[in-house]
Amino acid sequence: MAEWCLEDFSVGQTFGSGRLIVDQGRIKSFAAEFDPQPYHLDEDAARVSIFGGLAASGWHTAAMTMKLLVESELRIAGGLIGARFDELRWPKPVRPGDELRVHSEVIEVRRSRSRPTQGMVKVRITTVNQDDEAVQVSVSNIVVPCRS
Amino acid sequence: MAEWCLEDFSVGQTFGSGRLIVDQGRIKSFAAEFDPQPYHLDEDAARVSIFGGLAASGWHTAAMTMKLLVESELRIAGGLIGARFDELRWPKPVRPGDELRVHSEVIEVRRSRSRPTQGMVKVRITTVNQDDEAVQVSVSNIVVPCRS
Repeated sequence: MAEWCLEDFSVGQTFGSGRLIVDQGRIKSFAAEFDPQPYHLDEDAARVSIFGGLAASGWHTAAMTMKLLVESELRIAGGLIGARFDELRWPKPVRPGDELRVHSEVIEVRRSRSRPTQGMVKVRITTVNQDDEAVQVSVSNIVVPCRS
Repeated sequence: MAEWCLEDFSVGQTFGSGRLIVDQGRIKSFAAEFDPQPYHLDEDAARVSIFGGLAASGWHTAAMTMKLLVESELRIAGGLIGARFDELRWPKPVRPGDELRVHSEVIEVRRSRSRPTQGMVKVRITTVNQDDEAVQVSVSNIVVPCRS
Protein backbone atom coordinates (compact mmCIF):
# COMPACT_ATOMS: atom_id res chain seq x y z
CA MET A 1 0.00 0.00 0.00
CA ALA A 2 1.42 3.41 -0.96
CA GLU A 3 2.11 5.93 1.78
CA TRP A 4 0.24 9.19 1.48
CA CYS A 5 1.65 12.72 1.49
CA LEU A 6 -0.23 15.94 2.15
CA GLU A 7 -1.02 16.37 -1.56
CA ASP A 8 -2.98 13.10 -1.55
CA PHE A 9 -5.48 14.21 1.07
CA SER A 10 -8.74 16.06 0.52
CA VAL A 11 -11.75 16.88 2.69
CA GLY A 12 -14.39 14.15 2.71
CA GLN A 13 -12.09 11.16 2.18
CA THR A 14 -12.92 8.23 4.42
CA PHE A 15 -10.85 5.27 5.61
CA GLY A 16 -11.93 1.98 7.15
CA SER A 17 -10.06 -0.46 9.39
CA GLY A 18 -9.93 -4.10 10.39
CA ARG A 19 -11.67 -5.44 13.48
CA LEU A 20 -10.54 -6.20 17.00
CA ILE A 21 -12.37 -8.27 19.62
CA VAL A 22 -12.14 -6.87 23.14
CA ASP A 23 -10.77 -9.45 25.56
CA GLN A 24 -12.17 -9.55 29.10
CA GLY A 25 -8.84 -10.51 30.67
CA ARG A 26 -7.04 -7.72 28.83
CA ILE A 27 -9.62 -5.17 30.06
CA LYS A 28 -8.67 -6.16 33.61
CA SER A 29 -4.91 -6.40 33.11
CA PHE A 30 -4.73 -3.07 31.26
CA ALA A 31 -6.72 -1.47 34.08
CA ALA A 32 -4.55 -3.08 36.75
CA GLU A 33 -1.47 -1.46 35.20
CA PHE A 34 -2.86 1.92 34.11
CA ASP A 35 -6.39 2.61 35.40
CA PRO A 36 -6.98 0.59 38.58
CA GLN A 37 -10.58 1.53 39.31
CA PRO A 38 -13.22 -1.03 40.39
CA TYR A 39 -15.47 -0.83 37.28
CA HIS A 40 -12.51 -1.77 35.04
CA LEU A 41 -11.25 -4.55 37.32
CA ASP A 42 -14.13 -6.51 38.80
CA GLU A 43 -17.58 -7.57 37.51
CA ASP A 44 -19.37 -7.25 40.87
CA ALA A 45 -18.02 -3.79 41.59
CA ALA A 46 -18.77 -2.76 38.00
CA ARG A 47 -22.39 -3.89 38.22
CA VAL A 48 -23.20 -1.31 40.91
CA SER A 49 -21.13 1.47 39.28
CA ILE A 50 -22.14 4.14 36.76
CA PHE A 51 -21.14 1.67 34.00
CA GLY A 52 -23.57 -1.09 35.12
CA GLY A 53 -21.01 -3.78 34.23
CA LEU A 54 -17.34 -4.34 33.42
CA ALA A 55 -16.10 -1.65 31.00
CA ALA A 56 -12.73 -1.02 29.39
CA SER A 57 -10.69 1.97 30.50
CA GLY A 58 -11.07 4.82 28.01
CA TRP A 59 -7.29 4.67 27.56
CA HIS A 60 -7.51 1.00 26.66
CA THR A 61 -10.13 1.90 24.05
CA ALA A 62 -7.89 4.72 22.80
CA ALA A 63 -4.95 2.31 22.56
CA MET A 64 -7.03 -0.33 20.71
CA THR A 65 -8.22 2.43 18.37
CA MET A 66 -4.60 3.36 17.65
CA LYS A 67 -3.81 -0.28 16.84
CA LEU A 68 -6.70 -0.39 14.36
CA LEU A 69 -5.64 2.97 12.87
CA VAL A 70 -1.99 2.00 12.40
CA GLU A 71 -3.11 -1.08 10.48
CA SER A 72 -5.93 0.73 8.65
CA GLU A 73 -6.19 2.07 5.09
CA LEU A 74 -4.88 5.42 6.34
CA ARG A 75 -1.16 5.08 5.53
CA ILE A 76 0.90 8.24 5.98
CA ALA A 77 4.49 8.81 4.86
CA GLY A 78 6.69 9.02 7.98
CA GLY A 79 4.07 7.37 10.21
CA LEU A 80 0.85 8.24 11.99
CA ILE A 81 1.80 11.10 14.31
CA GLY A 82 -1.04 12.83 16.12
CA ALA A 83 0.20 16.26 17.08
CA ARG A 84 -2.92 17.26 18.93
CA PHE A 85 -6.49 16.18 19.62
CA ASP A 86 -9.20 18.82 19.59
CA GLU A 87 -11.70 16.42 21.10
CA LEU A 88 -11.77 12.97 22.66
CA ARG A 89 -14.80 11.32 24.24
CA TRP A 90 -16.27 7.93 24.99
CA PRO A 91 -20.06 8.04 24.36
CA LYS A 92 -20.69 4.38 25.33
CA PRO A 93 -18.80 1.81 27.42
CA VAL A 94 -16.68 -0.86 25.73
CA ARG A 95 -17.64 -4.34 26.98
CA PRO A 96 -15.86 -7.70 26.95
CA GLY A 97 -16.48 -9.41 23.60
CA ASP A 98 -17.23 -6.19 21.74
CA GLU A 99 -15.91 -6.10 18.18
CA LEU A 100 -14.37 -2.72 17.43
CA ARG A 101 -13.52 -1.05 14.14
CA VAL A 102 -12.54 2.49 13.21
CA HIS A 103 -13.91 4.92 10.65
CA SER A 104 -11.84 8.00 9.78
CA GLU A 105 -12.94 11.04 7.79
CA VAL A 106 -10.76 13.93 6.59
CA ILE A 107 -12.32 17.23 7.66
CA GLU A 108 -9.47 19.68 6.94
CA VAL A 109 -6.15 19.75 5.05
CA ARG A 110 -3.65 22.57 5.34
CA ARG A 111 0.01 23.20 4.63
CA SER A 112 2.15 24.55 7.48
CA ARG A 113 3.22 28.18 7.18
CA SER A 114 6.23 27.84 9.43
CA ARG A 115 7.34 24.46 8.02
CA PRO A 116 6.57 24.41 4.28
CA THR A 117 7.67 20.77 3.91
CA GLN A 118 4.79 19.51 6.01
CA GLY A 119 1.15 20.08 6.80
CA MET A 120 -1.70 19.04 9.02
CA VAL A 121 -4.61 16.78 8.21
CA LYS A 122 -7.54 17.01 10.60
CA VAL A 123 -9.40 13.71 10.87
CA ARG A 124 -12.55 12.73 12.73
CA ILE A 125 -11.88 9.25 14.06
CA THR A 126 -14.86 7.22 15.26
CA THR A 127 -14.51 3.83 16.93
CA VAL A 128 -17.69 1.75 16.71
CA ASN A 129 -18.79 -1.58 18.18
CA GLN A 130 -20.56 -4.50 16.47
CA ASP A 131 -23.90 -2.64 16.73
CA ASP A 132 -22.45 0.43 14.96
CA GLU A 133 -22.61 2.42 18.18
CA ALA A 134 -19.82 4.98 18.62
CA VAL A 135 -17.69 4.08 21.65
CA GLN A 136 -14.97 6.69 21.02
CA VAL A 137 -15.06 9.89 18.99
CA SER A 138 -12.00 12.05 18.44
CA VAL A 139 -10.76 14.84 16.22
CA SER A 140 -7.04 14.49 15.58
CA ASN A 141 -4.54 16.77 13.89
CA ILE A 142 -2.04 14.55 12.09
CA VAL A 143 1.37 15.76 10.90
CA VAL A 144 1.81 14.83 7.23
CA PRO A 145 4.90 15.51 5.06
CA CYS A 146 4.57 17.16 1.65
CA ARG A 147 5.69 15.25 -1.42
CA SER A 148 7.33 18.27 -3.01
CA MET B 1 -8.05 10.15 52.06
CA ALA B 2 -11.61 11.50 51.77
CA GLU B 3 -13.38 11.33 48.43
CA TRP B 4 -14.46 14.63 46.98
CA CYS B 5 -17.91 15.66 45.78
CA LEU B 6 -18.79 18.56 43.48
CA GLU B 7 -19.24 20.92 46.45
CA ASP B 8 -15.59 20.41 47.44
CA PHE B 9 -14.17 21.73 44.17
CA SER B 10 -13.36 25.32 43.28
CA VAL B 11 -11.47 27.00 40.45
CA GLY B 12 -7.75 27.30 41.09
CA GLN B 13 -7.31 24.19 43.24
CA THR B 14 -4.24 22.16 42.31
CA PHE B 15 -3.34 18.52 42.87
CA GLY B 16 0.00 16.73 42.68
CA SER B 17 0.87 13.10 42.06
CA GLY B 18 3.51 10.49 42.70
CA ARG B 19 6.25 9.68 40.19
CA LEU B 20 6.67 6.97 37.58
CA ILE B 21 9.86 5.98 35.77
CA VAL B 22 9.37 5.15 32.09
CA ASP B 23 10.71 1.70 31.28
CA GLN B 24 12.39 1.16 27.91
CA GLY B 25 11.10 -2.39 27.53
CA ARG B 26 7.55 -1.31 28.35
CA ILE B 27 7.74 1.47 25.70
CA LYS B 28 8.45 -1.23 23.13
CA SER B 29 5.97 -3.84 24.38
CA PHE B 30 3.15 -1.28 24.69
CA ALA B 31 3.91 -0.13 21.14
CA ALA B 32 4.06 -3.70 19.84
CA GLU B 33 0.53 -4.29 21.11
CA PHE B 34 -1.11 -0.92 20.42
CA ASP B 35 1.06 1.42 18.32
CA PRO B 36 3.48 -0.64 16.22
CA GLN B 37 5.41 2.14 14.51
CA PRO B 38 9.22 2.07 14.10
CA TYR B 39 10.04 5.06 16.36
CA HIS B 40 8.26 3.39 19.29
CA LEU B 41 9.79 -0.06 18.68
CA ASP B 42 13.40 0.23 17.64
CA GLU B 43 16.28 2.58 18.58
CA ASP B 44 17.89 2.64 15.13
CA ALA B 45 14.66 3.36 13.30
CA ALA B 46 13.79 5.97 15.93
CA ARG B 47 17.10 7.79 15.52
CA VAL B 48 16.34 8.72 11.89
CA SER B 49 12.66 9.54 12.57
CA ILE B 50 10.98 12.83 13.51
CA PHE B 51 11.54 11.85 17.19
CA GLY B 52 15.33 11.51 16.89
CA GLY B 53 15.33 8.56 19.29
CA LEU B 54 13.06 5.99 20.93
CA ALA B 55 9.87 7.67 22.20
CA ALA B 56 6.82 6.31 24.00
CA SER B 57 3.52 6.13 22.14
CA GLY B 58 1.31 9.07 23.10
CA TRP B 59 -1.26 6.50 24.26
CA HIS B 60 1.31 4.93 26.56
CA THR B 61 1.99 8.39 28.01
CA ALA B 62 -1.77 8.94 28.37
CA ALA B 63 -2.12 5.59 30.14
CA MET B 64 0.81 6.33 32.50
CA THR B 65 -0.75 9.71 33.20
CA MET B 66 -4.01 7.99 34.15
CA LYS B 67 -2.14 5.68 36.52
CA LEU B 68 -0.55 8.70 38.23
CA LEU B 69 -3.92 10.49 38.36
CA VAL B 70 -5.83 7.56 39.86
CA GLU B 71 -3.23 7.39 42.62
CA SER B 72 -2.93 11.17 42.99
CA GLU B 73 -4.37 13.60 45.53
CA LEU B 74 -7.40 14.08 43.26
CA ARG B 75 -9.84 11.58 44.83
CA ILE B 76 -13.40 11.76 43.48
CA ALA B 77 -16.46 10.00 44.92
CA GLY B 78 -17.54 7.29 42.45
CA GLY B 79 -14.17 7.27 40.69
CA LEU B 80 -12.25 9.29 38.13
CA ILE B 81 -14.48 9.28 35.06
CA GLY B 82 -13.43 11.52 32.20
CA ALA B 83 -16.52 12.23 30.13
CA ARG B 84 -14.74 14.23 27.49
CA PHE B 85 -11.41 15.83 26.68
CA ASP B 86 -11.42 19.26 25.08
CA GLU B 87 -7.73 19.04 24.28
CA LEU B 88 -4.98 16.45 24.31
CA ARG B 89 -1.45 16.99 23.04
CA TRP B 90 2.11 15.79 23.49
CA PRO B 91 4.50 18.78 23.32
CA LYS B 92 7.68 16.71 23.86
CA PRO B 93 8.62 13.05 23.41
CA VAL B 94 8.73 10.73 26.44
CA ARG B 95 12.07 8.88 26.59
CA PRO B 96 13.24 5.70 28.35
CA GLY B 97 14.22 6.58 31.91
CA ASP B 98 12.11 9.73 32.09
CA GLU B 99 10.48 10.33 35.46
CA LEU B 100 6.90 11.49 35.03
CA ARG B 101 4.54 13.21 37.41
CA VAL B 102 1.20 14.94 36.97
CA HIS B 103 -0.05 18.37 37.96
CA SER B 104 -3.82 19.03 37.84
CA GLU B 105 -5.59 22.37 38.12
CA VAL B 106 -9.33 22.99 38.39
CA ILE B 107 -10.41 25.55 35.77
CA GLU B 108 -14.22 25.23 35.91
CA VAL B 109 -16.89 23.72 38.19
CA ARG B 110 -20.54 23.44 37.21
CA ARG B 111 -23.62 21.52 38.26
CA SER B 112 -25.47 19.60 35.57
CA ARG B 113 -28.82 21.07 34.51
CA SER B 114 -30.23 17.80 33.21
CA ARG B 115 -28.87 15.67 36.11
CA PRO B 116 -28.99 17.73 39.33
CA THR B 117 -27.26 15.01 41.35
CA GLN B 118 -24.00 15.47 39.47
CA GLY B 119 -21.78 18.04 37.86
CA MET B 120 -18.69 18.52 35.78
CA VAL B 121 -15.25 19.61 36.91
CA LYS B 122 -12.95 20.81 34.15
CA VAL B 123 -9.31 20.12 34.93
CA ARG B 124 -6.12 21.01 33.09
CA ILE B 125 -3.86 17.98 33.49
CA THR B 126 -0.17 18.42 32.72
CA THR B 127 2.30 15.55 32.71
CA VAL B 128 5.89 16.69 33.18
CA ASN B 129 9.25 14.96 33.06
CA GLN B 130 12.22 15.23 35.46
CA ASP B 131 13.22 18.55 33.82
CA ASP B 132 9.74 20.03 34.38
CA GLU B 133 9.05 19.93 30.66
CA ALA B 134 5.43 19.25 29.72
CA VAL B 135 5.17 15.96 27.81
CA GLN B 136 1.36 15.81 27.80
CA VAL B 137 -1.22 18.55 28.24
CA SER B 138 -4.94 17.84 28.39
CA VAL B 139 -8.17 19.49 29.45
CA SER B 140 -10.59 16.95 30.86
CA ASN B 141 -14.22 17.20 31.88
CA ILE B 142 -14.71 14.91 34.86
CA VAL B 143 -18.12 13.69 36.07
CA VAL B 144 -18.45 14.36 39.81
CA PRO B 145 -21.45 13.48 42.02
CA CYS B 146 -23.01 16.07 44.31
CA ARG B 147 -23.04 15.48 48.05
CA SER B 148 -26.61 16.68 48.50
